[in-house]
Amino acid sequence: MISICLIGAGNVATHLYNAFKHSDHLTVKQWYNRDLSKISTYKNEVVITNAIEDLQIADVYLMAINDDAIGALSAALPFNDRLVIHTSGSVGIHELDKKLKRGVFYPLQTFSKEAPVDFSNVPICIETLDKADIGTLKTLAEAIGSKWYRVNTEQRQTLHLSAVFVNNFTNQLYRIAHEISDAKNIDFDILKPLIMETAKKVQTVSPYMAQTGPAVRNDKKTIKRHLKLLENPNHKTLYQLLTASIKKTHGK
Amino acid sequence: MISICLIGAGNVATHLYNAFKHSDHLTVKQWYNRDLSKISTYKNEVVITNAIEDLQIADVYLMAINDDAIGALSAALPFNDRLVIHTSGSVGIHELDKKLKRGVFYPLQTFSKEAPVDFSNVPICIETLDKADIGTLKTLAEAIGSKWYRVNTEQRQTLHLSAVFVNNFTNQLYRIAHEISDAKNIDFDILKPLIMETAKKVQTVSPYMAQTGPAVRNDKKTIKRHLKLLENPNHKTLYQLLTASIKKTHGK
Repeated sequence: MISICLIGAGNVATHLYNAFKHSDHLTVKQWYNRDLSKISTYKNEVVITNAIEDLQIADVYLMAINDDAIGALSAALPFNDRLVIHTSGSVGIHELDKKLKRGVFYPLQTFSKEAPVDFSNVPICIETLDKADIGTLKTLAEAIGSKWYRVNTEQRQTLHLSAVFVNNFTNQLYRIAHEISDAKNIDFDILKPLIMETAKKVQTVSPYMAQTGPAVRNDKKTIKRHLKLLENPNHKTLYQLLTASIKKTHGK
Repeated sequence: MISICLIGAGNVATHLYNAFKHSDHLTVKQWYNRDLSKISTYKNEVVITNAIEDLQIADVYLMAINDDAIGALSAALPFNDRLVIHTSGSVGIHELDKKLKRGVFYPLQTFSKEAPVDFSNVPICIETLDKADIGTLKTLAEAIGSKWYRVNTEQRQTLHLSAVFVNNFTNQLYRIAHEISDAKNIDFDILKPLIMETAKKVQTVSPYMAQTGPAVRNDKKTIKRHLKLLENPNHKTLYQLLTASIKKTHGK
């Protein structure tokens, strides 16, 4: 049984709390947040506190807080040599105070406040300074049904960057398609199955092999027609750059 | 019962043939292709031909052929006033020869040669010159389990353009993430659940509402760190443009 003190009350902290409490192999001993009101609804099921000096002894202190606050809060912890981990994709492991045993537990997924999270669908990138602690993080991930991957800080930061491409930027392409089709009174629903299928395809086929369309065929006529259809100059520029990127990838 | 003469032997034609033959409401009377060898494996279940003048009478002639060939082949058809439809996303309905009753049956989905297609997952964009023919196209779509949408040529061409954004361009973002992570020996599998979740989210939430990440938060520190991590100047430019696009969309 691994005991956890949870620190923070954002999306990640809350989803992790809900996953932790349903595991037979974990116990959340305490939940700390500076603003107690954000976790007060949980006070009947877990010890809550807003006093950092009251933190009890636990196997792991999991800080799911803002990137900018990790360094200072880890330094303010009223103990040494206990295992403290953060959940950030971009903060280095050494930004945790050096008085501590340090680790990272980065869930690579997008979380919404409302929707419940199935952690079997959330890869966890784990890292520890001390090899001896890696087992605890593996157990933690497995206890909530997640697959874990050992990555170093540079790899984790690269994954965080890659996630911006496959999540934020991809979502912006969806948004542009939404704008373009809205302008012609087209139901965005028509595009939804294609969006799903495009994501599904690369689960088994590499994006390189999955590519189709006018750019990879170097179909100049269609590309020209599309550029003419695009009214927004920013969309035009993006179309040209992404077309050039596809051509370059495929040696056209 | 609707009878069909199928024209062409590419991905779309073949997948449609397989869907048509399993429907109780449709019968494929004949399958034409210039190169008979491409459809000869089907000769025991359907009449095949490579002679355009041999085309029999049918309710619908469905041309699933190259965009560039549609005009000429429709003019070469040895009859007038029968319903001829093409499956292209970008070819205007008037490019079909004017001696014919004309229509469009555009499946908005990505097809691979190998994987079987579930047409309940393929929206069909339909258009006819003569209102009286729209019912036939609706029946055709419904007979293979597809949802149909009536769109005009401009809307269809806009959908085709939008599909490039949500399919080809999105896939290229996956590819870039693959390149970036490969360069640091990171297993691309780690990103796959996020790719799925990003697509899944916009099935119920608008891309506008679904957006997260450094650009929409205007998190300059992370953006700067990401740009530093990117070694390829083309990837850097794309990162900057897509970040600017997100900021503009969200008024940052």
